[in-house]
Amino acid sequence: VDAAVDLPTLDDVEDAARLLQGQAVETPLMRSPALDARCGGRLLFKAEVLQRTGSFKFRGAYNRLARIPEEDRGKGVVAWSSGNHAQGVAEAARVLGIPAAIVMPRDAPELKIRNTRALGAEIVFYDRETESREDIARALCRERGATLVPSFDDPHVIAGQGTLGLEVARQARALGQAVDALGLHGTFPDAEVFTVEPAGFDDFARSLAGRARVRNARPSGSICDSLLAPTPGELTFPIALHELAGGVAVTDDEALAAVHAAFLHLKLVVEPSGACGLAAVLSGRLPVQNKTVVVVLSGGNVDEADFARALRTPDPTLPEVG
Amino acid sequence: VDAAVDLPTLDDVEDAARLLQGQAVETPLMRSPALDARCGGRLLFKAEVLQRTGSFKFRGAYNRLARIPEEDRGKGVVAWSSGNHAQGVAEAARVLGIPAAIVMPRDAPELKIRNTRALGAEIVFYDRETESREDIARALCRERGATLVPSFDDPHVIAGQGTLGLEVARQARALGQAVDALGLHGTFPDAEVFTVEPAGFDDFARSLAGRARVRNARPSGSICDSLLAPTPGELTFPIALHELAGGVAVTDDEALAAVHAAFLHLKLVVEPSGACGLAAVLSGRLPVQNKTVVVVLSGGNVDEADFARALRTPDPTLPEVG
Repeated sequence: VDAAVDLPTLDDVEDAARLLQGQAVETPLMRSPALDARCGGRLLFKAEVLQRTGSFKFRGAYNRLARIPEEDRGKGVVAWSSGNHAQGVAEAARVLGIPAAIVMPRDAPELKIRNTRALGAEIVFYDRETESREDIARALCRERGATLVPSFDDPHVIAGQGTLGLEVARQARALGQAVDALGLHGTFPDAEVFTVEPAGFDDFARSLAGRARVRNARPSGSICDSLLAPTPGELTFPIALHELAGGVAVTDDEALAAVHAAFLHLKLVVEPSGACGLAAVLSGRLPVQNKTVVVVLSGGNVDEADFARALRTPDPTLPEVG
Repeated sequence: VDAAVDLPTLDDVEDAARLLQGQAVETPLMRSPALDARCGGRLLFKAEVLQRTGSFKFRGAYNRLARIPEEDRGKGVVAWSSGNHAQGVAEAARVLGIPAAIVMPRDAPELKIRNTRALGAEIVFYDRETESREDIARALCRERGATLVPSFDDPHVIAGQGTLGLEVARQARALGQAVDALGLHGTFPDAEVFTVEPAGFDDFARSLAGRARVRNARPSGSICDSLLAPTPGELTFPIALHELAGGVAVTDDEALAAVHAAFLHLKLVVEPSGACGLAAVLSGRLPVQNKTVVVVLSGGNVDEADFARALRTPDPTLPEVG
């Protein structure tokens, strides 16, 4: 891949936004006085758990699939994913009448497997420790003449996900808020953008710090099952190097406490991976005092057992019962 | 009370909507393809759990408190409530700088007590079985010269809650949907509106059927702690007789299963009382085949223990794991 030619531009993101009109949900940008009081900043929550299929991934998937030429659609699409990209691709494929096969790890959350199947996709399982999802997916594509839909390293996928930033910028402006972090630089050039990753799986933070892509030591082992990709993408890393201020990592307990806080204060179901941004703020790992900060709640596909575990994890924002 | 003079008009509701602009959240009207498929209708979910304080009650409370004359504000307000009206009044009072005392049952959910206190209100407890919340509240008002804020029998409170209907009508029109049930008759004159209550606490359904107000046999004993008012209001019942098509009742298990379904398919935290409308649809007690139906998810203030219980209650919408 020659990153220099393929990187999507702001025009591509605006084009994706037009294509997604009426397909993706314009998810609300929410406030919580209680969480603001707790962290001393102004938090704007992008509730992407309310997106179609319960995560932002539908945006990129639909923007990619809708651009497959008519004559290739019947041969189908293939993707690999632990669950959120899987559901995004399955739903976009269902809407567009394209057959979809998804390569999923055998240890993916049952809910994500169930939802992906309910959307009509074929599921091909692999073992995270011993098999290569890329090899399995590429073999399927060769056999069937199907189109591979990467979860991040694709210009249309990146542009589709970028529509989230466009929406945030417009919604924050409508609220009269200038954003200090995690906005879109076109609207807020001084905004600092951070990645938040699970501790032990902070390939992005370490790659940004060293200005070269490094890999995680392990393929699995965090409650944040959506954030276990081994290394930054070939296309996404140059964008990240240019756009991001840095990365922070949160522990599983901090992610679970953030899920608990979102339950109490936002009335939203957020999965641990989707709550990492909130965890970074609530744990103090990302200081937000007197700042206006957009926190993306990126997905809500969580099993009952994991959610119940989060409800048992102490929430640092809980006021004392007097 | 002379109901004939006090009933709010559509003008009053529109006036309340102007007053609430910038104070109340315009909550989204959401879709779920999975839930539509399950019940064979088009469901539009009014996500009032995302309202300020986690329920629609802020609308009526703010519309009432903002109309208290300046010279009376210092003497405070008094309300009785098991929790959602309590939080609505406490938050409106906090915003407007008015002292608030709330009479709450000793067995109210801990979360609702904690939230009401966190918003700065004074809490006065009573025993549901042996004491009269009305008597306690009226005595406090006499002592302090405070203003009583009823949870439903007040024209400004009713007009404030009515803004939810205005929003639904506007949002449904924007989606190109004509509503068959639970809309506002000004926009959709043929819409049928139903109440949904917990089984054993269906005073509204029985009063509508007999065209005269009757009382529930018991003061408590359902997981739906927000829906235990003993009898329809003096002001609300004549409106209900004129506007409503009827009422249905759902069991605690049906309400809990609906909480579970909202967790899975809508990614929203809904309390059992707030999920009764969804329970009526999912249980088939309110047939919605081929209809467009607005379901109000009216509140999301639920304890961890009750929510975990809901997650253990089988959800009838769950697809089989293959």
